[in-house]
Amino acid sequence: MSASELKDFSRLAIHTITTKAWSLEECVDRFSGAGVKGITVWRQALEGRNDVAIGAAGARIRGAGLEVVSLCRGGFFPGKTEADRTKALDDNRRAIAEAAALGAPLIVLVCGAVPGIPLEEARKHIADGIAALLPEASAAKVKLSIEPLHPMYAGDRSAVNTLGQANDIVEQLRSPWVGVAADVFHLWWDPALEAEIARCAKLGALDAFHICDWLSPMADMLNDRGLMGEGCIPIRKIRGWVEAAGFKGFNEVEIFSQRHWARDPKDFLKDITAAYLKHS
Amino acid sequence: MSASELKDFSRLAIHTITTKAWSLEECVDRFSGAGVKGITVWRQALEGRNDVAIGAAGARIRGAGLEVVSLCRGGFFPGKTEADRTKALDDNRRAIAEAAALGAPLIVLVCGAVPGIPLEEARKHIADGIAALLPEASAAKVKLSIEPLHPMYAGDRSAVNTLGQANDIVEQLRSPWVGVAADVFHLWWDPALEAEIARCAKLGALDAFHICDWLSPMADMLNDRGLMGEGCIPIRKIRGWVEAAGFKGFNEVEIFSQRHWARDPKDFLKDITAAYLKHS
Repeated sequence: MSASELKDFSRLAIHTITTKAWSLEECVDRFSGAGVKGITVWRQALEGRNDVAIGAAGARIRGAGLEVVSLCRGGFFPGKTEADRTKALDDNRRAIAEAAALGAPLIVLVCGAVPGIPLEEARKHIADGIAALLPEASAAKVKLSIEPLHPMYAGDRSAVNTLGQANDIVEQLRSPWVGVAADVFHLWWDPALEAEIARCAKLGALDAFHICDWLSPMADMLNDRGLMGEGCIPIRKIRGWVEAAGFKGFNEVEIFSQRHWARDPKDFLKDITAAYLKHS
Repeated sequence: MSASELKDFSRLAIHTITTKAWSLEECVDRFSGAGVKGITVWRQALEGRNDVAIGAAGARIRGAGLEVVSLCRGGFFPGKTEADRTKALDDNRRAIAEAAALGAPLIVLVCGAVPGIPLEEARKHIADGIAALLPEASAAKVKLSIEPLHPMYAGDRSAVNTLGQANDIVEQLRSPWVGVAADVFHLWWDPALEAEIARCAKLGALDAFHICDWLSPMADMLNDRGLMGEGCIPIRKIRGWVEAAGFKGFNEVEIFSQRHWARDPKDFLKDITAAYLKHS
C-alpha cells in the first residue's frame, strides 16, 4: 500500500548536509522561507560553538518556526583497542551534550565498522558502546537512534546493515533511549523491509525516516545520492509502510551529492520542495 | 569454524575475466602452467566462435589438464516489455548451447534488474525466465546457477541480493537444473550467510564458490575488487561454512579490477596463486 500524496510541507525536514555550502543560519532562514518545518543539524554545522552558542542556535531554529528533528551524527563504536573505543564513547558523550543544548530529541548513529574487525565483533562493540551511553542519554533525554547502513558500507562505516539487525540491537538493549533511524537509501533493496518496519514500530523504535533516491549507475559510493524521483527507490511505497506502522514524524531529505552540491543551493532547495511533493 | 589451510592448487579455478587481457588459449596455457586445475570461461572469451570451435576450445582446456567449472554468464531476465524478456531468453538459450558445446556443467546467472521495474516484479521475471529455460537446460545437462549479487547492484544488475533469496527461488522451482553460485564479494556482509549456505547445500543447490576480497575504500563499484588478503572478507571462515555444508568443488578466483588488469597478467597470476594459499 503506497502512501497518499503529500500536499504540504508540514512534515518536510531537511538535513543541513543536503545544502552544505550554507551555514546553519543560512539553512534555517532559507528552509524556513521555503516553508520547510523541520531541520536535522549535522555536527559540522555546529563546529566552533560552545553549549551556550549551540543553545542559542536551537532557539533561533525554533524562532524561525522549524523543529529540530535530530543531531547527525554519533556512533563509530568499533575499535581495535580499548583506547579507540573509549575515544569513540567520549565523542558520543559530547554529541549527547550538543543534542541536549540544541534541543534535539535524538542523535542518529552511524555505528561504525573497521577493516580487520569481524562484523560480529564490531556489532558487539556497537551494542556495548550504546549500552555504556544510556545513563547520559537518559539524563539528557536524548534518544540514540541506530541508522542501519547499506551493506556496501559494511567494510568501514557500519556493521549494522539491515533494519532487522538494528531491531535486534534495540530488542537486546531494551531501553526507551535506543531506537532506529530508517533511511530509504540504505534499506530499499531489502525484501524483509516492510516486516521489519512493522517490527521496529512495535518496539517503539521507529524514530526517524530519511529520504533521497538511488541512482543507476552511481558515480561514487558516498556522494552520489539522487533527489527523490531521480532514481529507482519506491519512496512512496516505503513511506506507506512507515505510516501504516504508525510513524507520524518528519520525512527528512538527506542527500549527499557532489552533483547537487556543485549547484546554487537556492536552486537545489527549490527542486527539493518540488520533488518532495511529486515523488515522496 | 574456519577451513583448514589450502596446501595445493587441486581446487583452484580462475575466471578468464580475472586475466582478461589474455585470450582463452593464453589463459589455458598460463593457468595450466601455474598448476591451476579449473577454469571458468566468460562468454567474451568465446566471441566469434561457433559451436564446433567452442567444442574444440573445451577439448583444449581438458587436454591442458583443466576442468571447465562454469560458463559465465547468463541471466538479465527482467524487462519492461515482453519483447525484452524474450530477447533475454534467446540469449540464455544461446548460452546453454555454448555451455553444452564447451562441456561446462553450469551457467552462472546474473539475474538482472531494471530501474523502474519494482524488485518484486523483477524477481518474478527472473523465476519465470529460469523456469522457461528448464527444458533446454535439462536436455543439454547444463545447470542454471543463480548468483545472488550484492545489494549495491539491486538498481540495475540483480534483484536477487541475498543467498536467502536465491534459495527461495531454488525452492520455488524445484528442479535439479537450478542451483546457486555463491560469491564472497556479494555475500560476506550477510548475518544469515552461514545458515543460508547450509540451507542451499541441503537443497542440493550449492554449485559454485567464488572468491576475491572487498576493499575499503573501493574506487569503483564494479571493477575494484581485491585479491584475497587485500580486503576485509573472512574468506577462510566462509570457505569453512561452505565445506562444512559438504561443498567439494572449486574455489574460483573472480576478480574485476582496473588496478590489477593494468598489471602484467603473469605477475598478477603469481600473486593469485600465492594469495590463494595464504589468504583463502
